[in-house]
Amino acid sequence: MLTPEGCRRRRERLVNHLGWKTPVVLADPIHLRYLAGFHVEAIHQHADFGAILVLFPNGDGRLYYDSRLPGASAQVEQHEALVWYDGQSPGRGPRRLIFEPILNQYGGRIHDALTDPQAREIHTAISQLRRAKDEDELEMIRRCLRATEAGHAWARQHLQAGMTELEVYSGVTQAVYQFLGHWAVVYGDFVAAKGKKRGGPPTNYRLQRGDTFILDYSVVLGGYRSDCTNTLCVGSVPPRQQELYEACLEAIRAGESALRPGATGQHVYHAVRDAFRRRGLEAFFTTHAGHGLGLMHPEPPFFVPHSTEVLQVGDVVTLEPGLYCDDCGMRFEHVYRITETGCERLSEHTLALACTSSQ
Amino acid sequence: MLTPEGCRRRRERLVNHLGWKTPVVLADPIHLRYLAGFHVEAIHQHADFGAILVLFPNGDGRLYYDSRLPGASAQVEQHEALVWYDGQSPGRGPRRLIFEPILNQYGGRIHDALTDPQAREIHTAISQLRRAKDEDELEMIRRCLRATEAGHAWARQHLQAGMTELEVYSGVTQAVYQFLGHWAVVYGDFVAAKGKKRGGPPTNYRLQRGDTFILDYSVVLGGYRSDCTNTLCVGSVPPRQQELYEACLEAIRAGESALRPGATGQHVYHAVRDAFRRRGLEAFFTTHAGHGLGLMHPEPPFFVPHSTEVLQVGDVVTLEPGLYCDDCGMRFEHVYRITETGCERLSEHTLALACTSSQ
Repeated sequence: MLTPEGCRRRRERLVNHLGWKTPVVLADPIHLRYLAGFHVEAIHQHADFGAILVLFPNGDGRLYYDSRLPGASAQVEQHEALVWYDGQSPGRGPRRLIFEPILNQYGGRIHDALTDPQAREIHTAISQLRRAKDEDELEMIRRCLRATEAGHAWARQHLQAGMTELEVYSGVTQAVYQFLGHWAVVYGDFVAAKGKKRGGPPTNYRLQRGDTFILDYSVVLGGYRSDCTNTLCVGSVPPRQQELYEACLEAIRAGESALRPGATGQHVYHAVRDAFRRRGLEAFFTTHAGHGLGLMHPEPPFFVPHSTEVLQVGDVVTLEPGLYCDDCGMRFEHVYRITETGCERLSEHTLALACTSSQ
Repeated sequence: MLTPEGCRRRRERLVNHLGWKTPVVLADPIHLRYLAGFHVEAIHQHADFGAILVLFPNGDGRLYYDSRLPGASAQVEQHEALVWYDGQSPGRGPRRLIFEPILNQYGGRIHDALTDPQAREIHTAISQLRRAKDEDELEMIRRCLRATEAGHAWARQHLQAGMTELEVYSGVTQAVYQFLGHWAVVYGDFVAAKGKKRGGPPTNYRLQRGDTFILDYSVVLGGYRSDCTNTLCVGSVPPRQQELYEACLEAIRAGESALRPGATGQHVYHAVRDAFRRRGLEAFFTTHAGHGLGLMHPEPPFFVPHSTEVLQVGDVVTLEPGLYCDDCGMRFEHVYRITETGCERLSEHTLALACTSSQ
């Protein structure tokens, strides 16, 4: 959970940045997560229905929310539940319109709505503020990471030829749920990688000996997310795969050496690419080298050829070098926080092609 | 998948209903599902980011969408992908703002946005149109139902004392994924019901002999959903539970007899309640008796004491009577379509307390 203090600090930063003397009315789900810790799980039956957050010039927040949503636990000074359906009378008309009277109280505007003249100013301000993560945000990301690692450990122990991609996904999610004690969205790539196929959701494809299986996935809590990748060989590890794996690990180390405040996104990208070039493998490296992570995936900064974005203290980023050949593909990914002097690795899953299961 | 013809018909109905001579600009996710078949899976990494649908007076639809979203398969005449992130340069500023230039082309308005003067008219019109389901919508719901039934069958075969609620959930989801050949959101109640506890997401609670375990869940495809409930006894079925079960089945039959065009929501509610009253059990029936179902859950009509809503041909509704005592709780639910002469049951899962597993 984001803390009351963290949400308060972020609201104060925003209202100070904007300098308005009147309330700011917000409805964008990402803004509500960031400034009030209000998040509707994607697997919640009412996930489409949001809330309205009003920020006052002193930093106070007031959340108006549909009473069937988890607004009571939002980190704001005032909680205002609006009842759409009480189980005794029909739902009160088209559901979203329950917020109409509230908006009328505040001049009929939602300042971060796309059609509002102030939307660009607010989206730009919050995007910038979101770069440097607060301690409570890092705690959310760390918890996502620990759950993700539990899933990766399960896969290393249980992956076998004959399992479908969906069976691996189910096993991973079960390990994640067990770790957390509740369900959560687990999304990403669960694919046997070959040729152009390097990502995608799990299917009923049955793993065969010789496949390389990419697990590149996120666990989402409160809108914050992890993003950790490992690749497992189905059966024993062939020498060629071992060679590509070692090149990927070297590329990650090269990327890590480049992670520090002041470095540009393209500098980090080229550090990773150069590691592959030294081994004559750069033709197989065709993707970005990593990206920022937080309430979005991906988010700034981007480790791509044309990024002049500058790393700053508090950025949370991933490095995810991969190599994709006709007969196999692999990718590995860790998550880092940019520190005063370089970077701190936040993710702790094992990067290894070999399963610990008796295949 | 919704069909091109179905989406086209729904767009024509809406523009005819509104009678505008200018384009209608829509962004509400439910409206985009209904009128264009555009849906971003909740387990998609970009689920927060929508699209803009422009309806022209002749019924044509043009969808502007973030190129990382599945807009290419939307059922519209024109598809316009907007590139926010291409993997070579950083993402183009705050992500939602990629739609800004499009809106400027259409007068800077989104007509179904809460702050628009036309929002009430549009939300009300679409809510009314959505009541009578088209054939392609029914096909979506039927597929959700078949997947849900696969999950219920798994639970009946595998439920055992010692499993956690989360383990049952994982097994059910795996059966759903296997049936579909892909992942999907599976949400709902997976709880051992006692006292006031009659719903909620699965936890690490371990099932014990004597528990009644409620499985009341939905599978979501394209935004459409099922909603099917069964209750299983952990271990053998005690006589008291058998008695309550028979009362619930009788209540469902009573509700079915009341389902026909022209009946009010409160009439259906009382038909269910009266069945319990005849057995002296009405004190244990404390919830609604059912509700409409489609792109929302619940949606009109509502089977509650104060509903004067009138059933119409094409409504898709559920009946879900339940009884909740101190030592156990149970609920059963089927899905129906209202026909000219009464109703057609759409769901086919077995309502039974007894597991087929050897407990």
